[in-house]
Amino acid sequence: MSQLYSSTLLENAVNEFAKLPGIGRKTALRLVLHLLKQSEEDVELFGNTFIRLRKEIIYCKVCHNISDTEVCHICSNPGRDAQTICVVENIKDVMAIENTQQYKGLYHVLGGIISPMDGVGPNDLEIESLVKRVQDEEIKEVILALSTTMEGDTTNFYIFRKLSPTGIKITTIARGIAIGDELEYADEVTLGRSIVNRVDFTNSFK
Amino acid sequence: MSQLYSSTLLENAVNEFAKLPGIGRKTALRLVLHLLKQSEEDVELFGNTFIRLRKEIIYCKVCHNISDTEVCHICSNPGRDAQTICVVENIKDVMAIENTQQYKGLYHVLGGIISPMDGVGPNDLEIESLVKRVQDEEIKEVILALSTTMEGDTTNFYIFRKLSPTGIKITTIARGIAIGDELEYADEVTLGRSIVNRVDFTNSFK
Repeated sequence: MSQLYSSTLLENAVNEFAKLPGIGRKTALRLVLHLLKQSEEDVELFGNTFIRLRKEIIYCKVCHNISDTEVCHICSNPGRDAQTICVVENIKDVMAIENTQQYKGLYHVLGGIISPMDGVGPNDLEIESLVKRVQDEEIKEVILALSTTMEGDTTNFYIFRKLSPTGIKITTIARGIAIGDELEYADEVTLGRSIVNRVDFTNSFK
Repeated sequence: MSQLYSSTLLENAVNEFAKLPGIGRKTALRLVLHLLKQSEEDVELFGNTFIRLRKEIIYCKVCHNISDTEVCHICSNPGRDAQTICVVENIKDVMAIENTQQYKGLYHVLGGIISPMDGVGPNDLEIESLVKRVQDEEIKEVILALSTTMEGDTTNFYIFRKLSPTGIKITTIARGIAIGDELEYADEVTLGRSIVNRVDFTNSFK
């Protein structure tokens, strides 16, 4: 198949793009041909941006979110509620929650979830540092906002057991029927849970 | 929206990916987070591959295909039929035709098609060099293999007019019903052309 590409440089570039998740060889070739049409300076900027990112990236030493500074702009913001920590899997979840503008507390980014199949154990994640935060700082509530997969549930339970001795309030985000969704199409587990965890009608407007 | 990203480095990297065709900001972020999980060496290789490609890329001085050498491996292959030139828009078309293993002649890569809307005129393409090749070398046939869009037809016609004075044989690839397709679903232009340009039954096995 190497004969397919008329140049080794071209083939290498296609290979690099094709290593990215969700990018096949056809798309990779399209991207490479696009780059070839850009100016040398633009392509240099393109390549160096990622090299610089990987080299200079800082993770907030408090919450482990990606940051430009030692302590991220959320952790260092005095306007945030520093007594509440929301535990998430990765920075995409932080961005999703920030987007809602409904949460004013801090975060703790685990960097993944416990997944023995992928060789990820509790020690590969920022769980110890979470326990330490809860012990050392004046935290009142920890919100678990991991995905409802088997791995997410395992991680939730592991963290719950680790934090239980501190007597802190541990909550999890509400699962239920999405706003706008019709009941008849909802899966039964979600629908069941949304009935069990029903809320006071006056609360539903908040 | 800049607040959305917790780091400028991160935002820059997302922006760079999002400049690529077909890659939105969500996909871009996913790709950036993937790169962050790779080793520093791997990301350096990733970035430098494109920088090197753009800097060191060579276009074959005969057919203008991407190449590692001054003359590409197709043009320099003595086993190819040097009297036939297939004119294509870009190197993806060369790869598609090479993949069929049905063509043994040479190529001529235009680098695009005439498209006034995009500001691409005949002088932006490798048309003059094609005329020169036909005049200087012993070419017997030029096959036009451009797309059947308005731009493709315009380009075909422009090249046809430029080459007509040389008296060379000018052909175009056959358009018709794709093998395996059913007649009832074919568009009428294609079906009409496939009837007008019908081939001898014995030829259809070749």
